[in-house]
Amino acid sequence: MLKQPSAGGDDGSGFTPLVVVEMAPDAKEEAVVWLTRKISASEQSGGAGLSVQQLWSGTAETEKDNPNVFLVGGSRQRLLSGAEDLGLFKEFNDGSMRAFTCANRDNFKDFKGDGDGFLSTAECQYIVKHELDSLRAKSETHIPGYEKAKLYPGKSIIRRMQSKGILVQVFPLHETEELKRLSFTWYKKVKLSLQPLDEIRHYYGEGLALYFGFLEYFTFALVPMALVGVPYYLFDWESYDKYVLFAGFNLVWCTVILEGWKRSSATMAYRWGTLSRKKAFEEPRPGFHGVLGFNPVTGREEPLYPNTKRLLQVYLVSVPFVVLCLYLSLYVMMVYFLMEGWALSLHAAEPTFWTTVLTFVPSVIYAVVIEVMNLIYRYAAEFLTGWENHRLESSYQNHLVLKVLLFNFFNCFASLFYIAFVMQDMVLLRQCLATLLITSQILNQVMEAFLPYWLQRRRNKKMMRRAHKRASPPPAEMPLADQVRLEADMSTYLGTFDDYLELFLLFGYVSLFSCVYPLAAVLVVLNNVTEVYSDAFKMCHVFKRPFSEPAANIGVWQLAFEAMSVIAVVTNCALIGMSPQVKSYFPESETQLILWTAAIEHVLLALKLILTFVIPDVPKHIQTKLARLEFESLEALKKKKMLEAPVQ
Amino acid sequence: MLKQPSAGGDDGSGFTPLVVVEMAPDAKEEAVVWLTRKISASEQSGGAGLSVQQLWSGTAETEKDNPNVFLVGGSRQRLLSGAEDLGLFKEFNDGSMRAFTCANRDNFKDFKGDGDGFLSTAECQYIVKHELDSLRAKSETHIPGYEKAKLYPGKSIIRRMQSKGILVQVFPLHETEELKRLSFTWYKKVKLSLQPLDEIRHYYGEGLALYFGFLEYFTFALVPMALVGVPYYLFDWESYDKYVLFAGFNLVWCTVILEGWKRSSATMAYRWGTLSRKKAFEEPRPGFHGVLGFNPVTGREEPLYPNTKRLLQVYLVSVPFVVLCLYLSLYVMMVYFLMEGWALSLHAAEPTFWTTVLTFVPSVIYAVVIEVMNLIYRYAAEFLTGWENHRLESSYQNHLVLKVLLFNFFNCFASLFYIAFVMQDMVLLRQCLATLLITSQILNQVMEAFLPYWLQRRRNKKMMRRAHKRASPPPAEMPLADQVRLEADMSTYLGTFDDYLELFLLFGYVSLFSCVYPLAAVLVVLNNVTEVYSDAFKMCHVFKRPFSEPAANIGVWQLAFEAMSVIAVVTNCALIGMSPQVKSYFPESETQLILWTAAIEHVLLALKLILTFVIPDVPKHIQTKLARLEFESLEALKKKKMLEAPVQ
Repeated sequence: MLKQPSAGGDDGSGFTPLVVVEMAPDAKEEAVVWLTRKISASEQSGGAGLSVQQLWSGTAETEKDNPNVFLVGGSRQRLLSGAEDLGLFKEFNDGSMRAFTCANRDNFKDFKGDGDGFLSTAECQYIVKHELDSLRAKSETHIPGYEKAKLYPGKSIIRRMQSKGILVQVFPLHETEELKRLSFTWYKKVKLSLQPLDEIRHYYGEGLALYFGFLEYFTFALVPMALVGVPYYLFDWESYDKYVLFAGFNLVWCTVILEGWKRSSATMAYRWGTLSRKKAFEEPRPGFHGVLGFNPVTGREEPLYPNTKRLLQVYLVSVPFVVLCLYLSLYVMMVYFLMEGWALSLHAAEPTFWTTVLTFVPSVIYAVVIEVMNLIYRYAAEFLTGWENHRLESSYQNHLVLKVLLFNFFNCFASLFYIAFVMQDMVLLRQCLATLLITSQILNQVMEAFLPYWLQRRRNKKMMRRAHKRASPPPAEMPLADQVRLEADMSTYLGTFDDYLELFLLFGYVSLFSCVYPLAAVLVVLNNVTEVYSDAFKMCHVFKRPFSEPAANIGVWQLAFEAMSVIAVVTNCALIGMSPQVKSYFPESETQLILWTAAIEHVLLALKLILTFVIPDVPKHIQTKLARLEFESLEALKKKKMLEAPVQ
Repeated sequence: MLKQPSAGGDDGSGFTPLVVVEMAPDAKEEAVVWLTRKISASEQSGGAGLSVQQLWSGTAETEKDNPNVFLVGGSRQRLLSGAEDLGLFKEFNDGSMRAFTCANRDNFKDFKGDGDGFLSTAECQYIVKHELDSLRAKSETHIPGYEKAKLYPGKSIIRRMQSKGILVQVFPLHETEELKRLSFTWYKKVKLSLQPLDEIRHYYGEGLALYFGFLEYFTFALVPMALVGVPYYLFDWESYDKYVLFAGFNLVWCTVILEGWKRSSATMAYRWGTLSRKKAFEEPRPGFHGVLGFNPVTGREEPLYPNTKRLLQVYLVSVPFVVLCLYLSLYVMMVYFLMEGWALSLHAAEPTFWTTVLTFVPSVIYAVVIEVMNLIYRYAAEFLTGWENHRLESSYQNHLVLKVLLFNFFNCFASLFYIAFVMQDMVLLRQCLATLLITSQILNQVMEAFLPYWLQRRRNKKMMRRAHKRASPPPAEMPLADQVRLEADMSTYLGTFDDYLELFLLFGYVSLFSCVYPLAAVLVVLNNVTEVYSDAFKMCHVFKRPFSEPAANIGVWQLAFEAMSVIAVVTNCALIGMSPQVKSYFPESETQLILWTAAIEHVLLALKLILTFVIPDVPKHIQTKLARLEFESLEALKKKKMLEAPVQ
């Protein structure tokens, strides 16, 4: 557990700071008072019923410090009832996971005494965040002191303050001791064991733990592919016969590992209790706006936005825009090939040192342009998806992921497709694939880990120096105020989107053209091993602690990976059909060859579909356990009704 | 409602006979008494709590009559509590459909006074059937009087008696007046209106109403196809250009109508309250056997059968058997083509009257062999699926449907595929398609409606003659005993399987080769219109009334139709690619043509997939209503918890 705040405010009631609420340094006094009152007011009077303390009440040490930093915690009772509201699943006495209820609390496995340590800090922080988010305006028409920050009944106060810049950020505190222990077992000790997924889940929540679980699973799943690929590289097996075998193996393998992941993800989600957790009614996302009206589902007053209008926006603006961007990306690719051809012909006509340099210029320009286009497009996609004004965060995310995915896929793989199927130059394809793969890996590692690490180190040192100045013997433990100051300056982790996107593109490199570059799997495995370490490091030391997010699966990414593996069937069949060895079986007629290739491709696609159907998504023993829970709740309901019914 | 029993037994308490239980005429007295006691015993003492009456207690008029025929009914209170147990959905005061509960009964729309007429007779009969089915053995080890009819705790008594032949049949009674009214609005009056689906559902239940809804929807959906197809036939538009247009139209149309059906099926199921009905825990199917053990889900004692053993049976026996049958079917087809070629060559060499006859012989033999093979295979599939020993009726049905579907598809369409893609003879394909379609339609109509109608008429007449003999002035209303006697002799309706299978094959004829025979849609529309009438007639007058079965959709058939429409994309693209007009666009290279065809086919398949994703399966307004219901139940739960929670 976190240490007690060392700087004032400990009222003896065992206040444990969980979440930091940082308001703007120049926020108006009345707004600050109003918010803190709201947070600490009882639930009956429309507050959150939480405890709130100013970080340095009157004792701000330097003028630079923001006085409007508050620590929010909650009494044990309040947090437990919050856990019940959220439908949090905890381990029951019989080993199953059940929704926690206060009435039934003594039947939960780890509930002892008054429930101390029953909820993990991450869970407590998630509960506090939920309670803060659901602080809603009642009769207020604007935020006190800010005439322009309009409110209406039901509007989330925190979100409006955030969008108006009155609230800077809300973030959960790290637990220094826990973190040390976690980072030691996770990546510091030299080991041959797996990642401590349960502990990661305990500290960061299910969403992140599933990402790391997927990263680990994906790495192990690629090992057989890599092992099969190594001899191809070592012994220079250039024969296409063997590539055909390799591609066949990969096709089956891709399908099997994706199905396998669904099963192991379900196993994990069951163990963590998120598999059968029912989603509560989803509230509108912060940016959602519209004409005030009554929600047809809840009957509550909230902004409404006509669905047809959104559909028109999506189909008349977003879809054409995305298509235009894809076209642009293809156009840039064609310009690149023209430039490359021109440079090569120049070099061939009169080879000098400068023409040799010139042959590299188009590639470099293209690589840079791709990165810039990805970046610009990402902003455009975020703007467009925001403009589409989705009511739910989940539907916003789905639309955003789809847009970004499609463009990234085109941008990264279009040139490879062109080389493979239009130029039909397998040697160039292999070179290009290797270059792209290795470059993107190096870039990623630098951008993702080393750069933030270096920045963070600099910040840490500065902070330490300041702390040293104050107290000459450096304290064994950092005081809370320093910890908050340090963490407030850390970068914010923006979710697993970019991490999954990276894996998705790597999966594409491995599966789409696996038969021409068997070493790809080896490279990806190596990359993933370092990725585990760098990602673990950045979660522990570079970023603010993120709020934990319950998740039962990797969501839309499962679909994305499956779509990629379907495309891989098509590309690999086409590559095999184009190979000289296969061609030699049909010496007379190219038509026959193509027809056979198409037929086999269709059979493979059908087989893939059948495999997806035949392999159950949830392992049998977990299905049984889920059915048992459902049966028991049905029986309990029946029994209750029998007791309630009048005697006849 | 049904008339009161005229032959004795009316005890003045308003007993309404709902279901007939017919035991073997030679059933042992003790078993008969035991069963009737079980049925009428109260629920607390392990009975069904229903009322039971002997049809002709002591007054059997002829010696031929079986004395062991019983009428089962239930008190209003008993039926209402049964409706609650089953989670039957009824219309609420606010127009939504909710699970009926006795405590809340006054808030349901049609509940007046003591609930007379609240439940339809079909619902009452379904409840009685459920209560009879769930009569389970407690301490008995065998059925009294039958040492060999073993029982164990939890075994359904009715099912064991049925499997031992002690119980002949259990069937619901028709309501003569209702039926007259229904058959009048359904098919007797000349009209231009739709079928009275709500009334069909009211009388026969949701499963059958959905079948007739699908039949109607399918017919209307084919009308545009038929309209487009007529000019092709009338003006002899033999140009392939136009066929390409037609095929393109059909591809889009197939996808759209299937998605549209999902939506209108959801609308109907919502209106009938089956869409959001939660399935109760499924009991093992009657034929299921195994070693007695404890069900891991319910903890109850019941036969268990290892899943791995079943999987081995499926993959090591059933799958090879099906593949073998498919191979055999292909083999027979090849023999047919050989015979046909031989007959044709004989006729060409020396044409006489006898060789002309001879050219028809192979077709006739093949048609007969196909029918015989379908029949034999159907028995084999039923045997195999029974032997696989599925625990649930639903999984048994899925395995059976899959087996039968696959074989029927091969048997009916293999020759067409062969003619289209191996022989590439479009004229023969058209002839063959027309012959198959028309023959199967005529055969179906005869086998399905006229034959049973004729048999039924004969039986009716015999019965009438007997009744006349007894009472010289024929009574205006048939006495109940005669009605029971009449209905007991009617054939049993074996479910919608064969009806759906027929539609599935028709859909195949329309969609797979639509571009070579545009008149197919016209023929299918005509067939469907008569099908509505003949099916309606057979339900009302040929078969016993079936027990109503709640259903939210057409289940595995939706999948089957979608699979067919995917295959249709492939075949139509291939047919178009083979057309001379398209070939003329690529005069130099056939390879280019095939590549383009394959590319377009892939794009179409992708488009189809995207369309399936983009069109929501449940219409928006119904989604909102469902969400509203769920939200309300969550809120109610919360409020209840608040009230129950101790004041803090």
